[in-house]
Amino acid sequence: MNSDPRQDLIHAATQFYQLGWMVGTAGNLSAKLPDGSFWITASGKSKGQLTENDFVRVSPDGEVLESPHPQNRPSAETSIHQTLYSLFPDANACYHVHSIEANLVSRFTEKDNLPLPPLEMLKGLGVWTENPEVVMPVFKNYLEVPRIAAEIGDRFKLSPPDVPALLIVYHGVTVWADSPEKAKNYLEIAEYIFRYIVASHQLSL
Amino acid sequence: MNSDPRQDLIHAATQFYQLGWMVGTAGNLSAKLPDGSFWITASGKSKGQLTENDFVRVSPDGEVLESPHPQNRPSAETSIHQTLYSLFPDANACYHVHSIEANLVSRFTEKDNLPLPPLEMLKGLGVWTENPEVVMPVFKNYLEVPRIAAEIGDRFKLSPPDVPALLIVYHGVTVWADSPEKAKNYLEIAEYIFRYIVASHQLSL
Amino acid sequence: MNSDPRQDLIHAATQFYQLGWMVGTAGNLSAKLPDGSFWITASGKSKGQLTENDFVRVSPDGEVLESPHPQNRPSAETSIHQTLYSLFPDANACYHVHSIEANLVSRFTEKDNLPLPPLEMLKGLGVWTENPEVVMPVFKNYLEVPRIAAEIGDRFKLSPPDVPALLIVYHGVTVWADSPEKAKNYLEIAEYIFRYIVASHQLSL
Amino acid sequence: MNSDPRQDLIHAATQFYQLGWMVGTAGNLSAKLPDGSFWITASGKSKGQLTENDFVRVSPDGEVLESPHPQNRPSAETSIHQTLYSLFPDANACYHVHSIEANLVSRFTEKDNLPLPPLEMLKGLGVWTENPEVVMPVFKNYLEVPRIAAEIGDRFKLSPPDVPALLIVYHGVTVWADSPEKAKNYLEIAEYIFRYIVASHQLSL
Repeated sequence: MNSDPRQDLIHAATQFYQLGWMVGTAGNLSAKLPDGSFWITASGKSKGQLTENDFVRVSPDGEVLESPHPQNRPSAETSIHQTLYSLFPDANACYHVHSIEANLVSRFTEKDNLPLPPLEMLKGLGVWTENPEVVMPVFKNYLEVPRIAAEIGDRFKLSPPDVPALLIVYHGVTVWADSPEKAKNYLEIAEYIFRYIVASHQLSL
Repeated sequence: MNSDPRQDLIHAATQFYQLGWMVGTAGNLSAKLPDGSFWITASGKSKGQLTENDFVRVSPDGEVLESPHPQNRPSAETSIHQTLYSLFPDANACYHVHSIEANLVSRFTEKDNLPLPPLEMLKGLGVWTENPEVVMPVFKNYLEVPRIAAEIGDRFKLSPPDVPALLIVYHGVTVWADSPEKAKNYLEIAEYIFRYIVASHQLSL
Repeated sequence: MNSDPRQDLIHAATQFYQLGWMVGTAGNLSAKLPDGSFWITASGKSKGQLTENDFVRVSPDGEVLESPHPQNRPSAETSIHQTLYSLFPDANACYHVHSIEANLVSRFTEKDNLPLPPLEMLKGLGVWTENPEVVMPVFKNYLEVPRIAAEIGDRFKLSPPDVPALLIVYHGVTVWADSPEKAKNYLEIAEYIFRYIVASHQLSL
Repeated sequence: MNSDPRQDLIHAATQFYQLGWMVGTAGNLSAKLPDGSFWITASGKSKGQLTENDFVRVSPDGEVLESPHPQNRPSAETSIHQTLYSLFPDANACYHVHSIEANLVSRFTEKDNLPLPPLEMLKGLGVWTENPEVVMPVFKNYLEVPRIAAEIGDRFKLSPPDVPALLIVYHGVTVWADSPEKAKNYLEIAEYIFRYIVASHQLSL
């Protein structure tokens, strides 16, 4: 991680945009600084061509500390990032994107969880058992984002997730990791698994 | 928007071509100038390698005002652009492309409309309700394009659409917006929704 | 068309390779010179990184006239190119690629033809009727390529095809046109139609 | 092949990463030197941005001979590469990737083999018969990779495979060839066939 993580976020956003995971102005990426504040993409920006000016720096409780442009507003989903940094103190990056496949698999939820297939790729999410049976937590979508964040906090305090990723119904995937590089790896693997699940259902496997 | 919007149109066309939305010489893009005239792609050009010479400038009633090459003819679909600029005075850009998914979903029409799924991404088209139930208007295709344009005008004067986009059966999608940048965002979101709908049907969701 | 058309063929091959239509060393592209001879890709070359040395120049009856490398052999499918140039004197370029979708749709053959959907995109293949009902001819595959070429010649002399393209079962698509640029457009449209047909069948449309 | 094959491996890995076959840090590539040792990607590296320092050189029996970084560990799957170089003395490159399609088709196994469709593309894997009926061997996945390697060795000593490629259930495809260039061609063709098989099943062909 660079001392200013915005370059990591810009590179990741460019790649995710090209993959179709951040079309329109959808999604938001953040990375934490040593003082606990975090840079997060500003609201309403095209993610394929971000600059360092398209971010705001936010305190752990959501106060805007620094804004390269006066009109920048933090992403509407900032409260979810806050909640995840609070729940997982080792997390230094949090990525949220809206792939088509993430939205499709959110429809295959069983008891607020998505069952994951026993792919070798799960090792990349930290699952090192033979024939693993793990799930990804799924949350309801609300227009009022802090309500989603509150449900994430309530649930994860009681039962931590099997993998560092969560889904919101019709509203994409979010991963967190101890570095931007690992967050990118986790997201790639999560999306890979979603595409595998979609194809499996198409094939009635 | 630049004072001459052709560079915006060239960049957008290159990207849409690479995404497979403007293969062969299909599709056409336009952007309006302050005087009400608009630049539109000339007919029969490969959209992956346009130059500023591959356009014509057309008056609001369809007269060719400026043509960098004497043999340039305005796109066959110019009448649709005229109609949309006339209906929506705030529109400054109008993009029409032929993705495979746009043609597929035109087959799922119900009462001349395509029902849209309640994706979070709809916010990017201006739909900010919880569990939204909106539709995209669908029009019949005719060999004679002005007939399509007339039906668009007649219908939208009576009932404005939920979203700034329309489909023509077997004949792609058209979006309009107050800037080329927003038209690109709208098109990305429309295509995202089409791909979601196609996959949903494949999965019997 | 340049006076030496190999640059056109190299650019087209690079693009087709990146689209997955010429993986491994599959497919072959040719372009005709004013004297009737044609440059064709040499056998066994990776199509993503051709140079001008990876071709041979062949006479209308298949004799090698020029070979930048002594070990270059003409493509195994040269006889098909010869046959098409002989049948269609206006043809100056002939492109053969192996997309997955071309092979899939060759399975939907009815009476040695693939019925094409009434897409607006058909205009790009020269079909300008409302609700068009046209077909693409399909040929059997044989290990001995000249036998395929002979069946193409026999059939097209009796009944010219609706569109400048043909399929061979399990063996890709071939298009021909009066210039390399148009051959590329035709191929893009043919592949677009194949992807549409595959998706239509998946959706039971 | 260059005298130091790592540049070939880096180029191949970059391409495979972009194709989605080496997401996260998945997969591993190796190339053999004249003395029988081989360079193999080090464990846990992002495959989209390898450098010459992200490899280790390993002896035929798995001993690390050279490591540009002291902390580099050989890939967890090194034993499979050792086994293949031992079984096939002409092999000079061995590529293992985890495409979604490879994992999907591993579910269509019949008697520990995947039946391959009679595509013309099989010629690129060395199959030159009309209407070929060949299979790709499939192996069980174990957490302990040397156990997979042992089963590969046992089976191939008794019955060599029809094609230079094998699948492991839920764990991707592996190809081997006498040069890195050919290994890349083989992998492209194997993945092409997998995508064809997946689509064929979706279409009930």
